[in-house]
Amino acid sequence: MPTLRELGEFEALRRLAATRRERPTVIVGPGDDAAVLRPAPGCDLVATTDAFVEGRHWLAEWFTPSALGARLAVANLSDLAAMAATPRWALLSIGVREDHAIEPLVELQRAIEETLGREEAGIVGGNLTAVEGAEWLNLTLLGETAMGRAWTRFGARPGDLLAVSGHPGRAGAGVLLARALGEKARAPEWQPLIDAWMAPASRGPLARALAVTGGVMAAIDVSDGLAGDLAHLCEASGVGAEIDTAALAEDAALARAAAALKVKPLDLALGPSDDYELLLAIDPSSRAECERIAHDAGVPLRAIGTFTDAPGTLVGVGSRGARAALEPRGFDHFAADRS
Amino acid sequence: MPTLRELGEFEALRRLAATRRERPTVIVGPGDDAAVLRPAPGCDLVATTDAFVEGRHWLAEWFTPSALGARLAVANLSDLAAMAATPRWALLSIGVREDHAIEPLVELQRAIEETLGREEAGIVGGNLTAVEGAEWLNLTLLGETAMGRAWTRFGARPGDLLAVSGHPGRAGAGVLLARALGEKARAPEWQPLIDAWMAPASRGPLARALAVTGGVMAAIDVSDGLAGDLAHLCEASGVGAEIDTAALAEDAALARAAAALKVKPLDLALGPSDDYELLLAIDPSSRAECERIAHDAGVPLRAIGTFTDAPGTLVGVGSRGARAALEPRGFDHFAADRS
Repeated sequence: MPTLRELGEFEALRRLAATRRERPTVIVGPGDDAAVLRPAPGCDLVATTDAFVEGRHWLAEWFTPSALGARLAVANLSDLAAMAATPRWALLSIGVREDHAIEPLVELQRAIEETLGREEAGIVGGNLTAVEGAEWLNLTLLGETAMGRAWTRFGARPGDLLAVSGHPGRAGAGVLLARALGEKARAPEWQPLIDAWMAPASRGPLARALAVTGGVMAAIDVSDGLAGDLAHLCEASGVGAEIDTAALAEDAALARAAAALKVKPLDLALGPSDDYELLLAIDPSSRAECERIAHDAGVPLRAIGTFTDAPGTLVGVGSRGARAALEPRGFDHFAADRS
Repeated sequence: MPTLRELGEFEALRRLAATRRERPTVIVGPGDDAAVLRPAPGCDLVATTDAFVEGRHWLAEWFTPSALGARLAVANLSDLAAMAATPRWALLSIGVREDHAIEPLVELQRAIEETLGREEAGIVGGNLTAVEGAEWLNLTLLGETAMGRAWTRFGARPGDLLAVSGHPGRAGAGVLLARALGEKARAPEWQPLIDAWMAPASRGPLARALAVTGGVMAAIDVSDGLAGDLAHLCEASGVGAEIDTAALAEDAALARAAAALKVKPLDLALGPSDDYELLLAIDPSSRAECERIAHDAGVPLRAIGTFTDAPGTLVGVGSRGARAALEPRGFDHFAADRS
């Protein structure tokens, strides 16, 4: 298996470019100074970028190159899903050690292509550079929406429903289980949590189906943790939120993980976790339609609270009506050791 | 001066976002899941990405944050210049150590904004993540051209003139001088070479002025080295090239550097060097018009050879007609120790 040092940059780029498929909107693909892309006239372009760093965003002993590539693709697809955009074109920048073999890198890029390809997007350019120490990956993803139709974080109004797709908290619980239990975390009982961490699903198709209703007023993806991301959405919209903590904690898999980890299920559900789920503000009149769409898509969509007119205030409401302020915790890559 | 660990990721992102200016084509800027951008209807989008890694692409003792940011911006502007595209929107991904102070990072981002801003482009999104070891920066730049009007590498024809802007080789010579002479390389006599390395100019305005003539048949930017990049252009176009080595070596500053470094001036002019100059295939009937445009722009543009019908063959032609094969050397980040 030749290494990058043996192949050289240009031959390595050629082998990576071979993973890609032709797409009619890509006028010039990888191999020129830049890619040339043809957006539909009258569309808005939506652009995001996300980096993964070895040891921080992935553990080499857990992730195959395929799993890593798919997860990086989903991390970016999730940002476009939170804007209700259709993904189209990606640029992949890779920083790897010289003794990295080429095949795992091709496998990684192919997994990104396949994951993006399921939503009709693909890689159109990139960069390959040598590093010493930790390796990293940076994916930039571009998509389109009809003019002025992108979801943002700033449209939530008091009275809108707070809804979330999937089971937030599971990805963070998966990381904690892998760290606490090591190989034993691969047991079937933990699989829903390990899968949520290692193989999250893209919510892009769900987002675009929901967008048709016009009933989604604001959106964010859960990439730091539910409480932290909800706080960002509330700040942008100038609203607060009340969370039905009993509804949120209804997740048997998370409850089992909480018991094993000796933490509260609610802390797992609200705390640091990159689930790549959608957190939505939904006009109450669209609730039934949104729930039907999610049901048809086979994705859980739960109403877990309501937006309020108390800006920046997150309140948990228990099953007996007890109210308590919630702390907006989430991932902060630079503040792990702050209190 | 607070560090990123003290500030946390979100406050750091806020301070970085404060360097940006409003732009009418940016519908949603930094601070949401993705940026929303409005391309002009009927335009082609042009996209590139480039990464700089500490120790490989910059030497901390030579580059201020401003100089580093400006150079990263020019590296990306250069790719769009080589496609004759107008730059519009950039996404900056930053991987830095936790004890990095915030001010130099703001200074770096401001320099990128200013450099892009001179061509009406700006940062619309990004990512900030913690690393241990070498820091890195990844800039993705998007631009526009009229539909189907982007320059590519594949349009050169036998008989087209080979022309180059500026003085290729100077940037690579600047790096060699800095390594060989240390602080003495800051002497005024070496300034044109150190400047070519540390503070390259964007050739975007020149490229877009030349594009109007319709006489540029193919283009690439000199980011690896003249001979290496010329080989890429020839391969893409299915042509060869003859270089007038006497014309190419006409650079007194490069000749002085070659003497100090005990190498041949021609090796500096052709060898590894990221000059961010334009290498162009020009229809001979457009030569005078292109030279006039470059003259008006105050940028040297020299005809240094001709494209031929011998695919992949690079030949140097000396002042007395002597011919010798040229080796297509350039930067290859993974092959430094290959023969």
